[in-house]
Amino acid sequence: MSAQPAPPTPKLIYPAPFPGRGEHIRLLLEEAGVPYIEGTLPEFQSLKSPENLGDSINTPLFAPPFLQYGDLTLSQTPNILLFLAQQFGLAGDPQDPHAVYRLNGLALTALDGFSNAVHDCHHPLGGNFYYEEQKGESLVRSKDYLKTRLPLFLGYFERVLKGEASGEGPWLHAGEFTYADLVLFQCLSGTRHQFPKAIQRAEDSGNYDLVFKLYNAVQDRPRIKAYLESNRRQKYGNGIYRHYPELDVDPEDGE
Amino acid sequence: MSAQPAPPTPKLIYPAPFPGRGEHIRLLLEEAGVPYIEGTLPEFQSLKSPENLGDSINTPLFAPPFLQYGDLTLSQTPNILLFLAQQFGLAGDPQDPHAVYRLNGLALTALDGFSNAVHDCHHPLGGNFYYEEQKGESLVRSKDYLKTRLPLFLGYFERVLKGEASGEGPWLHAGEFTYADLVLFQCLSGTRHQFPKAIQRAEDSGNYDLVFKLYNAVQDRPRIKAYLESNRRQKYGNGIYRHYPELDVDPEDGE
Repeated sequence: MSAQPAPPTPKLIYPAPFPGRGEHIRLLLEEAGVPYIEGTLPEFQSLKSPENLGDSINTPLFAPPFLQYGDLTLSQTPNILLFLAQQFGLAGDPQDPHAVYRLNGLALTALDGFSNAVHDCHHPLGGNFYYEEQKGESLVRSKDYLKTRLPLFLGYFERVLKGEASGEGPWLHAGEFTYADLVLFQCLSGTRHQFPKAIQRAEDSGNYDLVFKLYNAVQDRPRIKAYLESNRRQKYGNGIYRHYPELDVDPEDGE
Repeated sequence: MSAQPAPPTPKLIYPAPFPGRGEHIRLLLEEAGVPYIEGTLPEFQSLKSPENLGDSINTPLFAPPFLQYGDLTLSQTPNILLFLAQQFGLAGDPQDPHAVYRLNGLALTALDGFSNAVHDCHHPLGGNFYYEEQKGESLVRSKDYLKTRLPLFLGYFERVLKGEASGEGPWLHAGEFTYADLVLFQCLSGTRHQFPKAIQRAEDSGNYDLVFKLYNAVQDRPRIKAYLESNRRQKYGNGIYRHYPELDVDPEDGE
């Protein structure tokens, strides 16, 4: 009798003082009940270094979050999520060979609409300039986002949830809870931090009831609830999502 | 004896008068030698419509490119590429279960650095404003891109190609030609259209010789060469990549 080798322990390398992109990965691992460890700043610096050429099987990586899983090292949030979701049973029905692509499409769209686009609201000129150097441009971009893009993306996910392919219950795909639901939840949580008034108006409008039902249903999942109440869940700060009250405007209010 | 059902013919739905994001998908299908058809504007409008709730297995889709393959309908460029590359043998060694994630990471990083970021150079305030309404902001963002981001992304892919995991020969991963090489090629082709002088300076610098070697090696592949010379290859225009000479500055000049 030979002992089974122990499965690797995932290591998330995202040593930032805010939830950021790494948070999507934490939520997946928390929901899956998989013990994981957090990488250190020196590990991060070594992976991110311009001297790093990777190793014999792993290419060097561009930007965090990074994941180490056994001898595999990966980057790119939607990519790490795709890998872990398939590994830990959060990628839909394994008998449906197309499920994972549908979920990847939903996750990428949520990240486009409620993560990349929300970040760009406070850094339209780019990440190399301080917010204080681009306040005027940020207001233009935020107004436009809140007026046109936010309702477009919320409306899209409401349609997904109305559509037959979402199946019964509160989830996005085939009546089954998947990592795409977690991604949408975290995206909305961050967008709510940045634009609390706008998200409250959206919720109060009644136009996106299925989206907010999903948000609440994710939040109430026992492992997610326990995680959100733990000190492992960091506070928002100077990351992707930033609360500048002057950007959280009502685009229907005068000029 | 029963006849084998014919495999589906991929249909790309991206009826735009410029290569755009759909071009990555065309290049993959051309390289794979897979006959494909182009969807029409009414098909595009019907899929994109806010009335569309998808069907019993497909969720509605947010933004083009769209792919129809048999009864599967997908969106999101990196997602469609991932699906087609696995379908048509351009996703690396099928015996290596991790290859596809490494390639997906490389493709996502190329799209971040040479597609999304390049588009943002002429639309920093967002796609709902004309370029003419954001010329000043575009110049600020372009200068910053050319000074800091372009060398960072070029340098990253040069390191990937230097690294042991890229294997022998001109390709990004494990000595094998994959769809990630096509993505990097098309990203550089578009960036060269937008910033011809900057890309020429980068090539002349000698700092990214492996990147440009890959670019030329992709361009010389027989099917790619034939495609690029055909009238199926559209000219660049008002798409992701736009040539505004006033943005193609040397960031080391003046200021």
